[in-house]
Amino acid sequence: MHTLPPYRRILLLTEGRLGVFTSKTAAVLLRYRAADIVGVVDSTYARRDIREIIPWSPPVPICAEVRSAAALRPDALFVGIAPSGGALPPELRTHVKAALEVGIDVVNGLHQRLADDEELCGVARGSGAKMLDLRTPPSPVVGAGRAQQTRCRRVLTVGTDCNVGKMVTAVELAAAARRRGLNAEFVATGQTGIMIAGRGVAADAVVSDFAAGAVEELVLSVADCDVCFVEGQGSLGHAGFSAVTLATIHGACPDALVLVHHAGRTHYRNPPHNPLPPLPALRDAYEQTAALVYPARLVAVALNTYGVERDLADAETARIGAELRVPAADPWRDGCEALLDAALEGIRR
Amino acid sequence: MHTLPPYRRILLLTEGRLGVFTSKTAAVLLRYRAADIVGVVDSTYARRDIREIIPWSPPVPICAEVRSAAALRPDALFVGIAPSGGALPPELRTHVKAALEVGIDVVNGLHQRLADDEELCGVARGSGAKMLDLRTPPSPVVGAGRAQQTRCRRVLTVGTDCNVGKMVTAVELAAAARRRGLNAEFVATGQTGIMIAGRGVAADAVVSDFAAGAVEELVLSVADCDVCFVEGQGSLGHAGFSAVTLATIHGACPDALVLVHHAGRTHYRNPPHNPLPPLPALRDAYEQTAALVYPARLVAVALNTYGVERDLADAETARIGAELRVPAADPWRDGCEALLDAALEGIRR
Repeated sequence: MHTLPPYRRILLLTEGRLGVFTSKTAAVLLRYRAADIVGVVDSTYARRDIREIIPWSPPVPICAEVRSAAALRPDALFVGIAPSGGALPPELRTHVKAALEVGIDVVNGLHQRLADDEELCGVARGSGAKMLDLRTPPSPVVGAGRAQQTRCRRVLTVGTDCNVGKMVTAVELAAAARRRGLNAEFVATGQTGIMIAGRGVAADAVVSDFAAGAVEELVLSVADCDVCFVEGQGSLGHAGFSAVTLATIHGACPDALVLVHHAGRTHYRNPPHNPLPPLPALRDAYEQTAALVYPARLVAVALNTYGVERDLADAETARIGAELRVPAADPWRDGCEALLDAALEGIRR
Repeated sequence: MHTLPPYRRILLLTEGRLGVFTSKTAAVLLRYRAADIVGVVDSTYARRDIREIIPWSPPVPICAEVRSAAALRPDALFVGIAPSGGALPPELRTHVKAALEVGIDVVNGLHQRLADDEELCGVARGSGAKMLDLRTPPSPVVGAGRAQQTRCRRVLTVGTDCNVGKMVTAVELAAAARRRGLNAEFVATGQTGIMIAGRGVAADAVVSDFAAGAVEELVLSVADCDVCFVEGQGSLGHAGFSAVTLATIHGACPDALVLVHHAGRTHYRNPPHNPLPPLPALRDAYEQTAALVYPARLVAVALNTYGVERDLADAETARIGAELRVPAADPWRDGCEALLDAALEGIRR
């Protein structure tokens, strides 16, 4: 498991890519770690008002380079992009090197590891800065269904596809549960989740024999809370990533599942862009496969309606809720009290 | 994908562990590569008649050390054990080093890689011997369901647990299909399978994001045969290894599934030794989960009755066949004509 130092003055690196979709990691961190972010490094957008680009952002400055952000006294630079393939583009590497040179730690969620870059290692050694590669796998553990024995109840977000909002839904549900006085934890299974929670594991970077075990260890680490909301991965019907999905299911042994769907999406975003399965068939597959280790019911649907017109979003939410006969809502737009009610009802034993 | 050189004079290394269960890899190779094996290295059993220990073995000598096997003119030493954890015991490493010193290639299926051992690397460089670590993952590819577009039909063996006979069943089915004149391939997804087929990939050692992609690439490499029999991994209900299982399903896009079960086994062999799920529930979960990418029916059950008394084995075979309403047989004891009939019927489109 990765545990980050308690950074409180974070710079986000997006060089040339700042945007809701083009720097998804930064956009999400600007919402969920707003209080800990002091600025963004992106020469393309330097000195622009960040709220024109990321509407929900706090009013932090956009700097052209790490040196010009020195007055912000940053304690870490977080790589704020997540491109397909997971490589570090050269124009971002320049800023990473500059940060390390002046002793600023760098947190990186890309598949490409900073620790494999000899020059950066040398610079970090020289300044004493740390490099944290969040996709470095934990030591291997074989899953054994131990999560089902925790004191805490477990809710897992599962998706109809990648990039639909499973992490955001889990974060919002945990926050809503805490507002109700519950001792609730968000459990991060991906690199952006780790940047938000400060701890977690990137399940997709774990060797498949040990992926469920990695998620299980993570749930055991919050065993004594009241309820944990585990970030799911991929989709059980995704031709490439379903293995990671099942590792989160059998690793976390959830009591309840919350299905997350991007309103209006009819086909997988990845090639070959096959049609998504009918939602009832997907629900049945999730429940039946979970039950082979530990039974879980699908108790709610979180609809991601970002960019969808209000009328259409409402119609889609009503339609899907009726189709699966569970509460449905957009946790970002509508809040997630209704989803939380359903989840807490679903985890009663 | 790993492709082995065409070794024809193989030594098997089992040091202190020769036995049907204690050196499973060697035992299986003595059946399926009988014509290519010239001897076994195991000082504990040296000069014993190997057929007292492995009943189906060809009458090859057991030697105390690699040097005393020189007259057999071996071209490779295969590590013939697969201990839990996957480490290379020191007493086996001694023989590995001795083989490398005299220029004999070493093929290793353990998680622990010979290439990470600096001393062995030095010895191999000196003699020109090669070290082949079969658990080294292939270059990363994201699965995209492309196996469903191959000319060949695809049959996947799936299990009720680990160590039930999925690999043996796939090997036997492919051999039976070839005897009927079909251009049939066995597709190896584990290290022992690779040692038999001479090519394949160890799916359990691939990072979970890329495990389905690795199996998909493998199936595409035999796209033009008539029918391929893909070795499954783990079980969809296994708390630790289900992710690997699903990677083989969505990677191979099988037309038909053959369920493999160890007669009389009621609980998982791994901790916490939970009861196996009811077979109809397991079948439904396999079929529903497969269908999210490509539909497959479970068409037969291969019963592993090794060590079970004949009467009990027959009763169990009849009972399970009736329960799932498909042909059931032990491919090792009964041959697999009935299973092959069911598989070939099942893959008709």
